[in-house]
Amino acid sequence: MTADECAIRELVATWLKASAAGDIETVLSLMTDDVVFMVPGQEPFGKDAYRAAAQAAKNVRLEGTSDIREIKVLGDWAYLRNYLEVTIPLPTGKTVRRAGYTLTILRKLADGRWALSRDANLMTQQA
Amino acid sequence: MTADECAIRELVATWLKASAAGDIETVLSLMTDDVVFMVPGQEPFGKDAYRAAAQAAKNVRLEGTSDIREIKVLGDWAYLRNYLEVTIPLPTGKTVRRAGYTLTILRKLADGRWALSRDANLMTQQA
Repeated sequence: MTADECAIRELVATWLKASAAGDIETVLSLMTDDVVFMVPGQEPFGKDAYRAAAQAAKNVRLEGTSDIREIKVLGDWAYLRNYLEVTIPLPTGKTVRRAGYTLTILRKLADGRWALSRDANLMTQQA
Repeated sequence: MTADECAIRELVATWLKASAAGDIETVLSLMTDDVVFMVPGQEPFGKDAYRAAAQAAKNVRLEGTSDIREIKVLGDWAYLRNYLEVTIPLPTGKTVRRAGYTLTILRKLADGRWALSRDANLMTQQA
């Protein structure tokens, strides 16, 4: 595995860990300022909307796992195909499980860190 | 607009026109042999599965329009964000409308043509 592939795997692990801990600032540090998130049935949204949604849900402890299917590094850009499973606890005590694939474009910043730039999230609610 | 951006716009236009005409071979010629298509709620699929699905639906005349939101060329790779609207006529005389965003990775082949390599399709059925 190259150093870039390793760094991208680390980014995914850090993202999931920070999300589970409600550490919004760390998650925000892993995306570019011009990031675009895409999910089915909604308009694309950026970093400010991500922050607002994360803050509104900051007491929800998502538990997520990731199964990376492909990383392709293209110089200072890369794409990533991932399979995510997320469990969301509800106030009722039940949980919602969402799972699905993602296609993500990453960019290497001037300081050498990788960051999410474009993300298409195909997760759907599971039975 | 650069020549590469222009060629990618042409590819999208050719894809929609060939799909509307039921010209499966032309559509297949616009994707790499190792293409991966991703849609919500399904496992990713490749060129053979695309061909089989297209042949099964070859008498269905999809009418599609595209509104390209972003093209970013990265040497011999590129990504594309698009908004698609497709109308599918049903045997009953009614039509189904699907719409949504796509995130696509394209690759420039040895002969200079661009081809789809990875595609995440977030289209959903519209009311």
